Amino acid sequence: MGNIVIYEKRPDLRDPVLIEGLPGVGNVGKMAADHLAEKLNAERFANVFSRYFPPHVTLDSDCVAHLACNELYHASVGERDLIFLLGNHQGITAEGQFDLAEEIVDIAASFSVSKIFTLGGYGIGTVVEGPRVLGAVSSVSMKHEIEKHGVTFIPGEPNAGIAGASGLILGISRVKGIDAACLMGETSGYFVDPKSSGALLRVLMSILDLNVDTEELDERSRQMDEFNSKIKEMTEDQSKGHLGYIG
Amino acid sequence: MGNIVIYEKRPDLRDPVLIEGLPGVGNVGKMAADHLAEKLNAERFANVFSRYFPPHVTLDSDCVAHLACNELYHASVGERDLIFLLGNHQGITAEGQFDLAEEIVDIAASFSVSKIFTLGGYGIGTVVEGPRVLGAVSSVSMKHEIEKHGVTFIPGEPNAGIAGASGLILGISRVKGIDAACLMGETSGYFVDPKSSGALLRVLMSILDLNVDTEELDERSRQMDEFNSKIKEMTEDQSKGHLGYIG
Amino acid sequence: MGNIVIYEKRPDLRDPVLIEGLPGVGNVGKMAADHLAEKLNAERFANVFSRYFPPHVTLDSDCVAHLACNELYHASVGERDLIFLLGNHQGITAEGQFDLAEEIVDIAASFSVSKIFTLGGYGIGTVVEGPRVLGAVSSVSMKHEIEKHGVTFIPGEPNAGIAGASGLILGISRVKGIDAACLMGETSGYFVDPKSSGALLRVLMSILDLNVDTEELDERSRQMDEFNSKIKEMTEDQSKGHLGYIG
Amino acid sequence: MGNIVIYEKRPDLRDPVLIEGLPGVGNVGKMAADHLAEKLNAERFANVFSRYFPPHVTLDSDCVAHLACNELYHASVGERDLIFLLGNHQGITAEGQFDLAEEIVDIAASFSVSKIFTLGGYGIGTVVEGPRVLGAVSSVSMKHEIEKHGVTFIPGEPNAGIAGASGLILGISRVKGIDAACLMGETSGYFVDPKSSGALLRVLMSILDLNVDTEELDERSRQMDEFNSKIKEMTEDQSKGHLGYIG
Repeated sequence: MGNIVIYEKRPDLRDPVLIEGLPGVGNVGKMAADHLAEKLNAERFANVFSRYFPPHVTLDSDCVAHLACNELYHASVGERDLIFLLGNHQGITAEGQFDLAEEIVDIAASFSVSKIFTLGGYGIGTVVEGPRVLGAVSSVSMKHEIEKHGVTFIPGEPNAGIAGASGLILGISRVKGIDAACLMGETSGYFVDPKSSGALLRVLMSILDLNVDTEELDERSRQMDEFNSKIKEMTEDQSKGHLGYIG
Repeated sequence: MGNIVIYEKRPDLRDPVLIEGLPGVGNVGKMAADHLAEKLNAERFANVFSRYFPPHVTLDSDCVAHLACNELYHASVGERDLIFLLGNHQGITAEGQFDLAEEIVDIAASFSVSKIFTLGGYGIGTVVEGPRVLGAVSSVSMKHEIEKHGVTFIPGEPNAGIAGASGLILGISRVKGIDAACLMGETSGYFVDPKSSGALLRVLMSILDLNVDTEELDERSRQMDEFNSKIKEMTEDQSKGHLGYIG
Repeated sequence: MGNIVIYEKRPDLRDPVLIEGLPGVGNVGKMAADHLAEKLNAERFANVFSRYFPPHVTLDSDCVAHLACNELYHASVGERDLIFLLGNHQGITAEGQFDLAEEIVDIAASFSVSKIFTLGGYGIGTVVEGPRVLGAVSSVSMKHEIEKHGVTFIPGEPNAGIAGASGLILGISRVKGIDAACLMGETSGYFVDPKSSGALLRVLMSILDLNVDTEELDERSRQMDEFNSKIKEMTEDQSKGHLGYIG
Repeated sequence: MGNIVIYEKRPDLRDPVLIEGLPGVGNVGKMAADHLAEKLNAERFANVFSRYFPPHVTLDSDCVAHLACNELYHASVGERDLIFLLGNHQGITAEGQFDLAEEIVDIAASFSVSKIFTLGGYGIGTVVEGPRVLGAVSSVSMKHEIEKHGVTFIPGEPNAGIAGASGLILGISRVKGIDAACLMGETSGYFVDPKSSGALLRVLMSILDLNVDTEELDERSRQMDEFNSKIKEMTEDQSKGHLGYIG
């Protein structure tokens, strides 16, 4: 069991684009990809199992056991198809992450994808009011193509590079000659961040020229804003009270 | 030496069922499988060696050296045969556990097993008077089949999933299309637990429609109950004495 | 570079026996094997390199660089040949130790060795006046064969098993049907122990019906005895002085 | 993705010599090799990617993503060609370092290199005024050949051996019958050391009978000397002042 890819079916896909949304900083990428796949009624067509995932099974409500895996879904939008790489796991070792990322790029190549977008979060250590979407690309032409859809490029950033599936799938795509970009929603890095996910999804939809309802993400985002405001008020009250007590 | 499987013989087996009983929480699964294999006079037919077992040999009473290994036994019951996977070791790395679990499922498939049962313990952190036997399955139909034999299903439980051989053999069986279930005896998780083993074994025997004497397990269970009662008494006496002293 | 075995020559060997003497507890096995190989003017015929040895080179007096390796030597004694496995390294991971041990057994099999002896120390945590030589074997007949040469067999001992090359080569030999034994000189486990090495070597020579001068080992052993006596005296003097002071 | 070697082109090279300059102690080897490659207008012809490099991408000023890699350059000097192995990474595990070193030696062999020079630093724990260049070699004849160009050989040194790419490429070259030497500039081991790099480069140029301007290295070296002098002065002033205060 290096990797086992089990195809439930092997769909015919027209000019497909692969979108990766695995867990990561603030789960920004995962939530955006999951949301889009759900709204487009994407169908699962394959599971990727690997000895590099955690060595256990998890159980659903019927107590049916599921090996840790990544899943591939497809959906039609207009003249073309999207492939989604979704799941709850990344490889647990450096070697495993390389192995899985190359497996995914090879699967994408076998479907003749024209582009790959990997989605992630960009942790900046502080709460962001209006999160930007930063980009990293496989080529300068890819940069020009997506810049006009609101992707921000900061030379050399993220300075620490991009780790894990989002980075490696982008990097291996470039080595293998596939156009690719990584889109990263700014986020504090401390919480799951639906606001950043929403911003990321809107940029991705603009690039792909499609539109789905983002209401759930927006609603969760409003709830978090409220929660954050209350926390802030409480902190300020305490802080004033404390000064008053001293005075 | 990825894995080396050495067959002492390759038996003809009728409609076999594989039962896994490797070490784990409270050794609940191991004791149940060892007991059943012994009572059925199961015969060893193969050893599985692996570079993922601990790198040493142990010695028997003749000072003959034995590599760490897993062993396969077979036994006849009525119209069919059972295969037992027994041993003192699980793989020492995550990769090794996947590797070994897949090896076992492939061996099982080569004998056209109709079902696989993996046996384990379910640690709940407190002493259990009447341990239940919880189940996890490869399919809903498998759940319905074994539920009537006294297996308890709690949606989504164990919440932490099932780690190691019991979980992976179940998960890989499902991926490879083999009916499988994991049966877990409730246990504190602190001691070797013959009572839980006995409960597990009785459920397994009901499922497999067979019956062996469980007296040794029951006797060890009674001894542990006595021991636990004494510990409890002593703790209570001390506790009273202490209060008296204060008063 | 899984393993690379480089043959300087491939000797014709008559009924060869392989003797393993790699570093281990008290270097008991290594010193015995090195000493015997030297006295028999054994010639090197192959090097075993491996990615499981430490990732560096060491330098000789000409500053020529040497990768960590194991070396194979051969020597003639009467009607037969000996193969020596010597070196300064064992594999640095569990997987690597299995890999190398299997490589060695396969090389031995390619020369149709009739027996394999692995040499080691048996650490007992206290200084030993007259170290015994303990044995572990691949079969009961092997036990009977070497018992009469002064090998001590204690049922089930060493209780902790035999780790590393000595244990794995013995264990894999057994799996592959080659007669083998591990001979272990008793030793404190705290120092390099030439006395235990000498005892081990004498037993091995009796088994192999050969005889070489052990003077260097004996001389080093006498020096260590003297050194230990002095340490003991000093400790006792201090201890008496201390009591006198109190009194 | 064990290793992937991507050739941008496969140049015809005349009697090539490979020069390795990867990161290491004081970056002495890397700076010397980078400087020489730049001055000779070396051209990149291949990238070596590996699952043993860190699992991430870094970004250039266009936000184009680059997998961690090693790079091969070539340059002509007179009648022959040089190959440079440059980069910012070494393998992150022992196995990975072996794997990459063997890959490089195999690539070198495929170009029929006549010699390999690996460049590094030799950390001595104290600031060096006039750093020597120490050598380690694949053979005594190689030692004689480079000794006259100012390489110092100290029997058995470095005592701790040579770790990483410089050591392993030298060691594997020797095993595979390719003449090789490791040249090590003495350095404190605490700072990046352009002075040691300059000394190393001058020795290498003498061996290869070529000459490039070393002004940048020399200038950086002068700046570091000045900086070190100032630090020293300040420390001495403080130290005197302190004594005065006490007096």
